[in-house]
Amino acid sequence: MEQRVSLITLGVADLQRARSFYEGLGWSAADDGDDDVVFFQAGGMVLALWDRGKLAEDSAVTDGGGWGGVTLAHNVRSPHEVDAAIEEARRAGGRIGREPGETFWGGYSGVFVDPDGHPWDVAHHPGCTLGEDGSVIL
Amino acid sequence: MEQRVSLITLGVADLQRARSFYEGLGWSAADDGDDDVVFFQAGGMVLALWDRGKLAEDSAVTDGGGWGGVTLAHNVRSPHEVDAAIEEARRAGGRIGREPGETFWGGYSGVFVDPDGHPWDVAHHPGCTLGEDGSVIL
Repeated sequence: MEQRVSLITLGVADLQRARSFYEGLGWSAADDGDDDVVFFQAGGMVLALWDRGKLAEDSAVTDGGGWGGVTLAHNVRSPHEVDAAIEEARRAGGRIGREPGETFWGGYSGVFVDPDGHPWDVAHHPGCTLGEDGSVIL
Repeated sequence: MEQRVSLITLGVADLQRARSFYEGLGWSAADDGDDDVVFFQAGGMVLALWDRGKLAEDSAVTDGGGWGGVTLAHNVRSPHEVDAAIEEARRAGGRIGREPGETFWGGYSGVFVDPDGHPWDVAHHPGCTLGEDGSVIL
C-alpha cells in the first residue's frame, strides 16, 4: 500500500452549516453536482464533508458521539499567519480551543474546532519549511 | 487560510502497536529521534501517530471514546489494488469492516479499521485519475 492519504471525510450534522464554515475560511468547494457531499481540493488530496451517520455506516464503525482521536493540522509560514487563521476561524463561527501561543515544542500554534467538533491545529514550526504549494516534507 | 491539510494525527493507545500496523502495510516511518510521536510522510502531507489522551488535551476536546466522525480514504488504480490493500491490512492485524465489493457510487472499495479504531476506505473510482505521485485532483 503506497504511503499516502487520498481523502479525509469529516462527518457533519448539517452539511450547509459545515460548508459555510469552511467557505468562511476562504475555501472553495468543487462544484460536482452532488448535493450529499461537499468536496474541497486540498493540495494533492481532497477534504470531504458528509452526513456523519452515513459515514459511520459506510465506514463500518459505531459512532462514539464525540471526538474520536483524529486531529488535523494546518501549517503556516509565520506566527502572524497562525494569528490570522485563528481570527478567520473565529469570525467563521469556530470555537477557539486554544488561543495562539508558544508551544512546548518550540513552535507557535492555536486550535480551532469546527461546528461539528473537528479540531484543527494551526501551527508554525520554525524548523519546518513549507513548499511553495504548501506541502510539508519531513 | 490556504486550502490544504498539513498533518493528520491519529490518537493511539499503544504507539508501538500502531507503528507496527502501518509498517505492516509497507509504510516507513521518518526517523526523527522522537520517541513520543511517529511520523509518516504521505505525499505532500504527514500522517502522525500520538498518544490519544495527549492529543485530546492538545486539541482542546473531550474524548468521546470511540470513532468521532473522521474516515480516511486511500484511492488506488484498479479493483485488484483494492483487494491487495485489504489483504495487506488483514495480514497486518486490521479489522476488515467491509470486504471489497462494488459500491453504490459505481466504484469498488473495501474498509479496514486500524488497531485503534481508525477506518480507512480503500477505493477505486473509475472516473478519478491518480497522478503519478498518487495525488488526487477533482
